Amino acid sequence: MGDFSVNLPTCFVSLKITNFIPKRFMAKDFSTREENYSKWYNDIVQKAGLAENSAVRGCMVIKPYGYAIWEKMQAALDKMFKDTGHSNAYFPIFIPKSFLSKEADHVEGFAKECAVVTHYRLKADPDGKGVVVDETARLEEELIVRPTSETIIWDTYRNWIQSYRDLPILVNQWANVVRWEMRTRMFLRTAEFLWQEGHTAHATKQEAIEETERMLGVYADFAENFMAIPVLKGLKSENERFAGAVETYCIEALMQDGKALQAGTSHFLGQNFAKAFDVQFTSNEGKLEHVWATSWGVSTRLVGALIMAHSDDHGLVLPPRLAPFQVVIVPIYKNKEQYDLVCEKARQIMGSLQSKGISVKLDDRDTHKPGWKFNEYEFKGVPVRIAIGPRDVENGTVEIARRDTLEKEVYQLADIENKVDHLLNAIQDNLYTKALAFRENNTFRADTWEEFNELLDKGGFILAHWDGTGETEQKIKEETKATIRCIPLDNHQEEGKCIYSGKPSRQRVVFARAY
Amino acid sequence: MGDFSVNLPTCFVSLKITNFIPKRFMAKDFSTREENYSKWYNDIVQKAGLAENSAVRGCMVIKPYGYAIWEKMQAALDKMFKDTGHSNAYFPIFIPKSFLSKEADHVEGFAKECAVVTHYRLKADPDGKGVVVDETARLEEELIVRPTSETIIWDTYRNWIQSYRDLPILVNQWANVVRWEMRTRMFLRTAEFLWQEGHTAHATKQEAIEETERMLGVYADFAENFMAIPVLKGLKSENERFAGAVETYCIEALMQDGKALQAGTSHFLGQNFAKAFDVQFTSNEGKLEHVWATSWGVSTRLVGALIMAHSDDHGLVLPPRLAPFQVVIVPIYKNKEQYDLVCEKARQIMGSLQSKGISVKLDDRDTHKPGWKFNEYEFKGVPVRIAIGPRDVENGTVEIARRDTLEKEVYQLADIENKVDHLLNAIQDNLYTKALAFRENNTFRADTWEEFNELLDKGGFILAHWDGTGETEQKIKEETKATIRCIPLDNHQEEGKCIYSGKPSRQRVVFARAY
Repeated sequence: MGDFSVNLPTCFVSLKITNFIPKRFMAKDFSTREENYSKWYNDIVQKAGLAENSAVRGCMVIKPYGYAIWEKMQAALDKMFKDTGHSNAYFPIFIPKSFLSKEADHVEGFAKECAVVTHYRLKADPDGKGVVVDETARLEEELIVRPTSETIIWDTYRNWIQSYRDLPILVNQWANVVRWEMRTRMFLRTAEFLWQEGHTAHATKQEAIEETERMLGVYADFAENFMAIPVLKGLKSENERFAGAVETYCIEALMQDGKALQAGTSHFLGQNFAKAFDVQFTSNEGKLEHVWATSWGVSTRLVGALIMAHSDDHGLVLPPRLAPFQVVIVPIYKNKEQYDLVCEKARQIMGSLQSKGISVKLDDRDTHKPGWKFNEYEFKGVPVRIAIGPRDVENGTVEIARRDTLEKEVYQLADIENKVDHLLNAIQDNLYTKALAFRENNTFRADTWEEFNELLDKGGFILAHWDGTGETEQKIKEETKATIRCIPLDNHQEEGKCIYSGKPSRQRVVFARAY
Repeated sequence: MGDFSVNLPTCFVSLKITNFIPKRFMAKDFSTREENYSKWYNDIVQKAGLAENSAVRGCMVIKPYGYAIWEKMQAALDKMFKDTGHSNAYFPIFIPKSFLSKEADHVEGFAKECAVVTHYRLKADPDGKGVVVDETARLEEELIVRPTSETIIWDTYRNWIQSYRDLPILVNQWANVVRWEMRTRMFLRTAEFLWQEGHTAHATKQEAIEETERMLGVYADFAENFMAIPVLKGLKSENERFAGAVETYCIEALMQDGKALQAGTSHFLGQNFAKAFDVQFTSNEGKLEHVWATSWGVSTRLVGALIMAHSDDHGLVLPPRLAPFQVVIVPIYKNKEQYDLVCEKARQIMGSLQSKGISVKLDDRDTHKPGWKFNEYEFKGVPVRIAIGPRDVENGTVEIARRDTLEKEVYQLADIENKVDHLLNAIQDNLYTKALAFRENNTFRADTWEEFNELLDKGGFILAHWDGTGETEQKIKEETKATIRCIPLDNHQEEGKCIYSGKPSRQRVVFARAY
């Protein structure tokens, strides 16, 4: 709180609070989705204080508000992982270069774009200021900054597994990884990103497949129930499979511009890594066998998906279950007396809401006007805004605005915590329902190559027949930039002809242009 | 659960359960502290499943049980940081080489031992199998894997701070860092380690100093109330200061072998980094000024401190507030009927304890005998072990063993959750009291150089007069390997003579050999 004798608050009270709020403060330097979707996305990321580019090419700084969303995601996922029997552990950030080559497909996928540590010391520049690499301190074997950890983890598991009694191993790691992407975009594709990677080891193929599917289910639950984003569950085609996997399962979401976004993957790795790193166990029957493996991960990319799925031309829209704070309270006042009165009431309301488990921020700063605050929190996607002025205190009311619909309503204070709790659930449900309707309205069937191309320009998921060959898939990708997002699990079987080759097909797969 | 018709359990019930437990299962291949303190420590780390060395020199794998301790530490500290107004954020793992040189002292401290990324691609080895560095993919400017993040963060803060209204910035980061240490030791000194680093920005010197001291207080609280380790709070001498700090505050703990361990540091950075990265703000009075800074951190080294402070010749001893699970329940039975009976009761007890917020593991595996389990959990330092057999079910009792004193007692089941809660608090307090008594019994005053050397060989904290010069400090270090651990805050002032130089001194400082 500032000193009132010096900083006289300059905001006033009106009968109807929101009369004083200019319609769209931020709109002037903020793109709409229609004007420029890509700029709209970047504007939200930066102006809502989620992230920014750093001095290191392709690496972002995740700012406190953006990181708070990631923390909410982590907390929810971590609980789901633990509830399904997993423990966390931590493996080295560095991978000896030779490890990458041990699994043939894996090295193909990951050697191309990686950060390579070659030296372990700097020294004063003999020719001037600053420091230079000390060439005498060259590593015998270069180290790769992990792009994913299958190799170092399976090298470790070799020592953990002797008998079937040591299985399953159900381990997850929260970590940073680095992939030297050429074209980056905040949250969606960055050189360094944060993620979790589960790595499990099993005695049987069946158990490993069950685990792969179980974790896909966890991801789908999380996307739908926390992120309020409906997802398709399916299998990747061979071309799109994780390097080293026998089968890659994925969840695919649809963004507002009609592009698809892969939101999580769960890989059945077969015995590939166990063979590459010589991990065998003695079975119940005394036989020596290779271990079966899975790996699965989601990353900070989910924050990008969250932004793109729900936000609007007024800024970020957050589902209550992942919002850093679910409610903001803004006091309205014109002098110190009113300020004290209103803030006291606001703190009471905050207490009631918190007792119900609702997270609340009371913005009682006198350095910013209510109008500025209204716009700030609207732009930051806070699900519920409560405004309270002296007249409200008198009447036992507050004005409540919900971010998803921008509707405002006056509420009686009695039982306010249950009313707000109910409202938060309604917002969470509404966001999911809207996103589901959007996906349904943007899922199409194409039966000819012409239709397929027309629909692609419109955007959305396209269900079309495909002859099942990687060759056709590759050609479609080259000609249209569309990829097979997935072959849905339990897919409907029907006779048809490949939209590209005309060859016979037994099922439609899901095509889209994608992030 | 296995199939009882196949795997007949081979354990039996006795009137007094623990008669059946061989006295010291593990002792045979486990060193005592007296035999070999260093081996004792490594044995605990490895055999209790806390961590192990990896294929990458100096980097450890933190195993699930060890990581669970770190997670408990993180949760407690994170709450304390948030309660004092801090938010988490994330900054890039890479630091452009030129950034390190911008603060003169900082580069001295950190350029010597760091991992340097020079290339961003591998390619197939033209001469054979595997992959080699693609020499055409050389970075224009090398990137350093962060040894600490002051430079990249202050480069970022420049864009966040224009006016006094943007201050303070109170940010923390949970991250991995890399320092290319030559001699490593699990948890205590590893090439990669996990930590948190707080980085705050303030408008005034006074505020920054208050923040530095506040966070030192948080660390001391955490050490004493969660880790059950008493710590000295003090200032580092100039020689031991963080590279780039104006003043380094620290907490120092004493280990059972009489060596000191620096458990956390909080740095007042003055305007050093603001000047190096040109971070200025317009003050309340409209003047352009450099920003004042602090940074503070603790790391996975704390897990090492925890092990060394409390463990004994029977293995790990964990304070209840940081134990991955506080109670283990071991059922005793000789057939399927007894197993069902005992496990049902055990699950009831587990439920009662959990309702009180106590974390419990029920080990109902029939693949291991009770004696094996008793030893396992004793070695792993689980604070409370509950054993229950058919006779107990009949009598409404359980046998409870506490890990700190190894005492066993039969408890009536009535109100068991409050009894166990009380016991856990008693264990937490007892560990702290023991550690405090140990420190008091091993803190000495030396008034002559001879006394000083004799006491050093005994181990412990030595309070001795010092003339205040870096030169004397350096000579003492060279001759004895002892360092000044800290100059205690609010230190008693007394006239005296430096034990080394004989020059006048106004206060005793704390010397010790240290980890």
